[in-house]
Amino acid sequence: MDKGKDVTIYDLAEKLNISVATVSRALKDDPVVSKKTKKKIFELAEEMGYRSNNFARNLRTQRTNTIGAILPRLNSYFMSTVIAGIEHVANSQGYNLIISQSSESGEKEQQCARTMFNNRVDGLLVSLAYDTDTIRHFDSFLKKDIPVLFFDRCAEHDQITSVLIDNRKAAYEATKHLIAQGCRRIVHITAHTSRNVYTERLAGYRQALEENQLPFDGSLIIRNNLSQEAGYEAAKDILAMPRLPDGVFVANDNCAVSCMLALKKQGVSIPADMAFVGFNNDPVSMVIEPNLTTINYPGYEMGEVAARYLISHLMGGAPMTATNTVLLRSELIIRDSSLRNP
Amino acid sequence: MDKGKDVTIYDLAEKLNISVATVSRALKDDPVVSKKTKKKIFELAEEMGYRSNNFARNLRTQRTNTIGAILPRLNSYFMSTVIAGIEHVANSQGYNLIISQSSESGEKEQQCARTMFNNRVDGLLVSLAYDTDTIRHFDSFLKKDIPVLFFDRCAEHDQITSVLIDNRKAAYEATKHLIAQGCRRIVHITAHTSRNVYTERLAGYRQALEENQLPFDGSLIIRNNLSQEAGYEAAKDILAMPRLPDGVFVANDNCAVSCMLALKKQGVSIPADMAFVGFNNDPVSMVIEPNLTTINYPGYEMGEVAARYLISHLMGGAPMTATNTVLLRSELIIRDSSLRNP
Repeated sequence: MDKGKDVTIYDLAEKLNISVATVSRALKDDPVVSKKTKKKIFELAEEMGYRSNNFARNLRTQRTNTIGAILPRLNSYFMSTVIAGIEHVANSQGYNLIISQSSESGEKEQQCARTMFNNRVDGLLVSLAYDTDTIRHFDSFLKKDIPVLFFDRCAEHDQITSVLIDNRKAAYEATKHLIAQGCRRIVHITAHTSRNVYTERLAGYRQALEENQLPFDGSLIIRNNLSQEAGYEAAKDILAMPRLPDGVFVANDNCAVSCMLALKKQGVSIPADMAFVGFNNDPVSMVIEPNLTTINYPGYEMGEVAARYLISHLMGGAPMTATNTVLLRSELIIRDSSLRNP
Repeated sequence: MDKGKDVTIYDLAEKLNISVATVSRALKDDPVVSKKTKKKIFELAEEMGYRSNNFARNLRTQRTNTIGAILPRLNSYFMSTVIAGIEHVANSQGYNLIISQSSESGEKEQQCARTMFNNRVDGLLVSLAYDTDTIRHFDSFLKKDIPVLFFDRCAEHDQITSVLIDNRKAAYEATKHLIAQGCRRIVHITAHTSRNVYTERLAGYRQALEENQLPFDGSLIIRNNLSQEAGYEAAKDILAMPRLPDGVFVANDNCAVSCMLALKKQGVSIPADMAFVGFNNDPVSMVIEPNLTTINYPGYEMGEVAARYLISHLMGGAPMTATNTVLLRSELIIRDSSLRNP
């Protein structure tokens, strides 16, 4: 067929001898059209190489039925569960999801935002990159009334709702638990960033120390990128400390696990010498021996809630501006890595 | 500003008092335009809410500088390394990447393909879903000369190049290693699917048995979805066998690790009673005790190679049809889970 010229819904309607309206509805997956008819239309559309004219359709309906998600990295169990939750809701509501990755770079995040904007997504879900210091790149969406919602890694904005857990409280519980297990010198391993999740966890750690009359000691704070490699490095830093700590609270499980492995190799006994608590409840926390005490982070629910908010708004529900923050529950899961007096 | 009317590059050029050509080049990230000018233009574009008119631009240049990737699931370490490899090449070549997930469903994969087609991607990278039984949904791309490339989970097609490892050889090496360690009754845990990766691994397992005059016994083949949960179930099946096996070769590490954990709980000693080999070399293979022998699967390189092939073709390189298959090297990594006579 002619590669230059695009096939139109008129061509499809004519060929199948049905109304253009039916074809158009079918292509939008409108339930009023029977599965059987849709199948016929989709098959012909595939065969003739039809592609919906997003541009023209936008001028008419301002809809593409596509949601965009910009994520910092796709390499964590937590993020994969969030995506599963988003997809579950998006699919059930007839929305497609396209994802792009900022690779923790604010500059890349701006490119991703441009791509999503040019793809005319109906709404955008964002978890901010490590080093994002401005969120002005979302203004173009808001100007067009395209809703933007932050989850997990959030920033304050009067037109953007944030869906997250109470990171401060979760970290407070984790640290309080270590103190209750007799820990007095507790290392906190966190990220080099001012992202909300990490500053809040640090604040919760600090609050627990203060409430228990333990001094806050900056030399016990280790900052890295929380990767597996960073965990091995952190173990070296810990072993190099003039006085060894008796507890370690790490801002994610991956880093906690590799740190534990390295310390075990050096003969450190966990939890007797050092009690460990991680964050996220990744499956690896049940593989490491002793099993890792951690914070159960409801990724799937977070994805569902974020997508439900965005879509209900797209379907004419409550304005996003009405809600500032949605906090999800998280809980401390106590396992052997921190249990000193079982 | 008026939400109905779209801002054009003419508006931008006028406002900045520079040529329309410069604006157009800058928006395509053309290196001939200085960073400084680009910055000015991007900032104004953001501010005025400009969005590139993909439709019109396509009619002119047939380019969106966007690559699409359809992946079965985003929940594996392997897949996240593949994505990192794709992104590395795409970014360096000035292409954006949009990703969608088939969730292992052939039907969902067809929807994803439609979305990518409607978003007018310049090229498509696909790793097929578990239950995809036709690849006709990619014909519309090929008809428009939009290149499609399969990686890892592939199917035969005369216009589609496949990038993968030699799964048969890798499985053959893994099984041969178990036999060399004295295993005579080797269970193989694989997936309920006819996807190439699993049928090839089964064939390699079978070939190693035959070459060593060991009978192929269908009752030693366990089929599941290779999830963590499936690993726990597989352990029950193994313990229920009238005669226990002395070796287990699992088609992925996640499932191998949870199976090992469950068997260890029941007092099975690994590798003495049962030697284990997994597949993928996920980080968890270094966390489980004893560390898991596995096949190192070059995910990052696979992503790079796939993206490089697609983009070099887009930039007028060799036609895709010339290459049928690109095989990447993989290797057996021997660790304690299989070493019976160290």
